[in-house]
Amino acid sequence: MEFLNEVMTRYPDAISFAPGAVHERFLRDIDVAACVSRYSAHLSGQGLDAAAIRSRLGQYGPSQGIICDLIAAALGHDEGIDVAAEAVLITVGAQEAMLVTLRALIREAGDVLVVADPCYVGIAGAARLLDVPVVPAPGGPAGLTPAALAGLCSAARAQGRRVRVLYVAPDFANPSGDRLSLGARQDLLDTADREDFLIIEDSAYRFTGDGSEWLPSLKALDRRGRVIHVGTLAKVGVPGARVGYAVADQPVRDRDGAVATLAAELARIKSMVTVNTSPISQAVVGGLLLEHGGSLAVLARDKRDFYRNSLRRLLDSLEARLGSAADPVPGLSWNRPQGGFFVCLTLPVPATEALLEISAAQFGVLWTPMTYFQVGDGGCHDLRLSCSYLDPDEIDEGVARLARFARAHAAPDGGPLRGADAACG
Amino acid sequence: MEFLNEVMTRYPDAISFAPGAVHERFLRDIDVAACVSRYSAHLSGQGLDAAAIRSRLGQYGPSQGIICDLIAAALGHDEGIDVAAEAVLITVGAQEAMLVTLRALIREAGDVLVVADPCYVGIAGAARLLDVPVVPAPGGPAGLTPAALAGLCSAARAQGRRVRVLYVAPDFANPSGDRLSLGARQDLLDTADREDFLIIEDSAYRFTGDGSEWLPSLKALDRRGRVIHVGTLAKVGVPGARVGYAVADQPVRDRDGAVATLAAELARIKSMVTVNTSPISQAVVGGLLLEHGGSLAVLARDKRDFYRNSLRRLLDSLEARLGSAADPVPGLSWNRPQGGFFVCLTLPVPATEALLEISAAQFGVLWTPMTYFQVGDGGCHDLRLSCSYLDPDEIDEGVARLARFARAHAAPDGGPLRGADAACG
Repeated sequence: MEFLNEVMTRYPDAISFAPGAVHERFLRDIDVAACVSRYSAHLSGQGLDAAAIRSRLGQYGPSQGIICDLIAAALGHDEGIDVAAEAVLITVGAQEAMLVTLRALIREAGDVLVVADPCYVGIAGAARLLDVPVVPAPGGPAGLTPAALAGLCSAARAQGRRVRVLYVAPDFANPSGDRLSLGARQDLLDTADREDFLIIEDSAYRFTGDGSEWLPSLKALDRRGRVIHVGTLAKVGVPGARVGYAVADQPVRDRDGAVATLAAELARIKSMVTVNTSPISQAVVGGLLLEHGGSLAVLARDKRDFYRNSLRRLLDSLEARLGSAADPVPGLSWNRPQGGFFVCLTLPVPATEALLEISAAQFGVLWTPMTYFQVGDGGCHDLRLSCSYLDPDEIDEGVARLARFARAHAAPDGGPLRGADAACG
Repeated sequence: MEFLNEVMTRYPDAISFAPGAVHERFLRDIDVAACVSRYSAHLSGQGLDAAAIRSRLGQYGPSQGIICDLIAAALGHDEGIDVAAEAVLITVGAQEAMLVTLRALIREAGDVLVVADPCYVGIAGAARLLDVPVVPAPGGPAGLTPAALAGLCSAARAQGRRVRVLYVAPDFANPSGDRLSLGARQDLLDTADREDFLIIEDSAYRFTGDGSEWLPSLKALDRRGRVIHVGTLAKVGVPGARVGYAVADQPVRDRDGAVATLAAELARIKSMVTVNTSPISQAVVGGLLLEHGGSLAVLARDKRDFYRNSLRRLLDSLEARLGSAADPVPGLSWNRPQGGFFVCLTLPVPATEALLEISAAQFGVLWTPMTYFQVGDGGCHDLRLSCSYLDPDEIDEGVARLARFARAHAAPDGGPLRGADAACG
């Protein structure tokens, strides 16, 4: 990743399909003061006086968070995820939610985490930080079939290990763009029950789904307490607030034998990581939510439309310049996700950092080598294109540059970088 | 701690010497919108246009932080800690700074952390989260003599372990109130060099020191790269922003052999914990700092005066009601810190949760059993009194209640709880 950042700095005029950041247009409407006022008015409506509101926002606060009720209500009416506020933990982005959840669930030597490979760098990083062994399931989320998972579980048992947690983003995963069908979701829950593992469901890109093809989240389908649902306000709200959440309604027994929710146990762990999420940040996203009727879906609506349009533009441009109606580059292909920020492109040559350097220097276009997201082998010829940060016009021009680059350097009959194959494998 | 929170909820009218929270009076002046405006104006003065400022505050940002320069400058002129912005990491409170630093420094099986016992719960919690073994050095920070530390290091070596990190708050530690003399500071640095360990210096209560008795921080004295200095804006700024920092100017080699600061390595680890500290939160404390000439000391001045007064009031009240000029309770004693939020009181009977319940129910006064802060044995008869959250009048009334409680239940000739001794040991 550092090489990528460094290349982006060296070629500031290149069009970059690398960042998965939100589009700058959505920062225009963020008025921190107005959001805090809106949330303060909400507290006032609940009977808090000015001093109590100041204290709620200014003091340390509960590790579990101060907007658990707002998130629980939003997930209830938006998603049919029916949980009490006590089942919600507010975190410093989805990243902390994943770290804390992993720490709570994986406690014994031999417990392992399974991820669909390639996978989001955040979960792999959290696992590395906690020394949690990661087992890659090849083929992206779509490869998480009952048979594949049963195989991984049984291989783990043969090594004296246990698959304890599976991480999956069922909706337009980063980087694969894969989405699980309804049947695949049900299979996954059944498999989790049969093989006795828990699922961390990352819902970061779920909001980009089209309403007409709506599928329930794993958590909404979860009847057996198998799923911890992780979400973020970064993409539907504002990244700069750094607010995410975990939904963990599983009953757990504490040391004194009392029953509480897993979310309360996560809060205890969180208190050792960041103590609590900034109440000021929580007030900012709380105010945003309230301004949109308390609905994450309503808050997300204009972003969903914009990103869906950007993704379509990217796919249409690729088709126009490199598709079957144009002059296809043999061996070059890409997937066609129905949502999310990302497209996976496969080159006939290895997508190395050396090739990225050429792409930037000679063609003015940047992308992310898929190897950055790989836990296991594979992905050597793949790269990730992100459309979220670019303007529609930039997407077209970027694909035009990408097409020139592909024709010049990614020909299957070998280019200057054929020798780099070994380095990537 | 949960018992304490629960008791506080059950006895809302009790005067509580338990919370180490900041006094509510200091939340009155916090105007989030004004702080963000002030920081935005600062960015504008640096040449950023409106869109760039929006992006700086609203987007994800660098893991290392966006106000590293302000903190480095403040530490330079306030503390004589002469470091570049590149040596500073902005964190979600001091808690994340400690977690990330521990993770960076302790990498090998057998590496242990030494803490002065009793010690701050945050460092013990971070160590527990990372499965880092903690070795208690009895006697508080004052017990960290060269001989005591050499003994711990050699005992560790005999077990095939290595003292890798020492955590210490040299200025008015929580909970002991201890402060290290200049000689003790120099001894500590020499010992760290001789025994080859690193020091995490927690400066949370340093601001409460009187200027006339000013002592340099360990980091200001550090000539051999032994100290990582950790600070927080919670007590001198606003807790609700959740902003802290680590100063780590040690040169380290990254995987490619390039030399960077330890702070950059800490930032890489932080990216797996929270990605980055909320830029909105950073703007809030950045604005506060700028409003006070960029000086942490100036920002802290009124808080220092208030808390010094509160501590003096607590000590004077204790003296008046339980001291030698009054009618002392045999076996009851307390220390007399020169700063910080805390006083340690030793009872002639064990300071158990059962005794706390009696103190709350019958005498309307709350405190924290010292066993909550103990890593090793000891502290059984001790409790912590915090003066930070109370008004001066409440301190007087609280001590009056405490004195009645002590006379009724903490007599050395046995009280109703004499039998609880065993439970505390």
